[in-house]
Amino acid sequence: MASAKTEPGLQQAMTRRQITGFSNPTVKFVRSLRDKKHRRQERRFLAEGLRLLTDAREAGHVPELLLMARGREFHPLIEQLERDVARAGGEVVEMPADILAKITGKDNPQAVAGVYEEFDTGLARLDRASAPIWLVAQALRDPGNLGTMLRTGDAVGAGGLILIDDCADPFSVEAVRASMGAVFTQAIAQARWDEFIVWLRAGEGQLVAASLRDAVPYRGAPYAGPCFVLVGNESRGLPEDYEAQCDLRVTMPMRGRADSLNAAVAGAVLAYEILASLE
Amino acid sequence: MASAKTEPGLQQAMTRRQITGFSNPTVKFVRSLRDKKHRRQERRFLAEGLRLLTDAREAGHVPELLLMARGREFHPLIEQLERDVARAGGEVVEMPADILAKITGKDNPQAVAGVYEEFDTGLARLDRASAPIWLVAQALRDPGNLGTMLRTGDAVGAGGLILIDDCADPFSVEAVRASMGAVFTQAIAQARWDEFIVWLRAGEGQLVAASLRDAVPYRGAPYAGPCFVLVGNESRGLPEDYEAQCDLRVTMPMRGRADSLNAAVAGAVLAYEILASLE
Repeated sequence: MASAKTEPGLQQAMTRRQITGFSNPTVKFVRSLRDKKHRRQERRFLAEGLRLLTDAREAGHVPELLLMARGREFHPLIEQLERDVARAGGEVVEMPADILAKITGKDNPQAVAGVYEEFDTGLARLDRASAPIWLVAQALRDPGNLGTMLRTGDAVGAGGLILIDDCADPFSVEAVRASMGAVFTQAIAQARWDEFIVWLRAGEGQLVAASLRDAVPYRGAPYAGPCFVLVGNESRGLPEDYEAQCDLRVTMPMRGRADSLNAAVAGAVLAYEILASLE
Repeated sequence: MASAKTEPGLQQAMTRRQITGFSNPTVKFVRSLRDKKHRRQERRFLAEGLRLLTDAREAGHVPELLLMARGREFHPLIEQLERDVARAGGEVVEMPADILAKITGKDNPQAVAGVYEEFDTGLARLDRASAPIWLVAQALRDPGNLGTMLRTGDAVGAGGLILIDDCADPFSVEAVRASMGAVFTQAIAQARWDEFIVWLRAGEGQLVAASLRDAVPYRGAPYAGPCFVLVGNESRGLPEDYEAQCDLRVTMPMRGRADSLNAAVAGAVLAYEILASLE
């Protein structure tokens, strides 16, 4: 407890690598993680902001590399992060606030950022019996929608998010940010449709789609867990043959001019209905 | 009907002003509408893409200025737009695809864009009896969330969206795009909180907030139309004293680590519940 009262800059300066220039290789490396190609190569991703990093730590994820702004105010959560990173054998680097702001795209002097190892996103690691609801997105292109679905999944107690076909990257800065930390708590899997269907049919599971074709009202529909809630691409929706393979097609009221909702919104309305139905 | 078979470029070339350079004042004017300050000055906004412009037309909104790419393929909906603009006394300008792409930020050769007059956003023009549900957002900062709420409002048959305190601009390109045309069908009002409360209490209306304080479960809560569904700022939620002034505070299950949903998602889950409850 005594150490928490010490000025941490003095106490721990020896363990922090100092970076002074934009051209530093670590700065270049971290900035490169904004780019999907580099994330794939490095199998690393970037999360930004104290809240997100604290959420990650609470979920058991400590960054390999912790980036901190020099001259920031003392914060007990930053100190704790630093200790955890050191304990896990990670590295802590400190840099002028303007360099960190360039990396994070934010100019908050409290700013911290972390580099994390990407998680395994194979279907095989999902335990479908561990949760009554799973979210499934097909060709979801918007990283904000993807992050929002992760966040919704966390809220409804879903097991995770399964990404079918070519979706946005769940490890992009935008998706991580929109997930509000749920990227660290929800399981994430990526698969082609055929692969997903084989996996799904090898066990229990009801595949439910929001649909306009051959659908029953979403309220009071015969949901059964584990329930896999499928939403489609933002502009095209689900391919017809994918819908046809669903166990249940449900429709939500559309009282206006349009015939669809935002994909993340549709998934959430449906997931909350299923949550209530399965209780 | 015969005219639809004519090559429209030949048929109507005389009525289209031709633009050839990026420095053209019209191009500069339209590009300036990406900026809030200029939108306020001009009281005009920009909508992009054939689908959006067609939705607008179906809702009775014809652009003052229609921008089209030269060399685009013939499309009957573009032709109809062009006729409607001409009939309404608007202007049609044609430009190389690369200039239009620079304006719209898209490189779709079919691209069209329109400049519209902003709508009156005073509370006084809302007819609360016209719809059972109204969405209300306080200090909503993300234009994508704002547009998504407009889209959800359209889907649940809401009367419109009331924006409290400092929200994102509903006429920004991002909000207009995310609304998927609902910016043209939903009424939009902007007001300070005090002004809104005075207006609300001058007539019928139940103010409902998603809340963690002193709240009842959102399912089966005693909703009554016209129901005003209030969601708060993305990071801070609603101010406590705003919540205290609500007629009903409801809570949604939070089964995960986090205690909140994306603002647009929370509004949608609540609005769909209210829609079912009021039927």
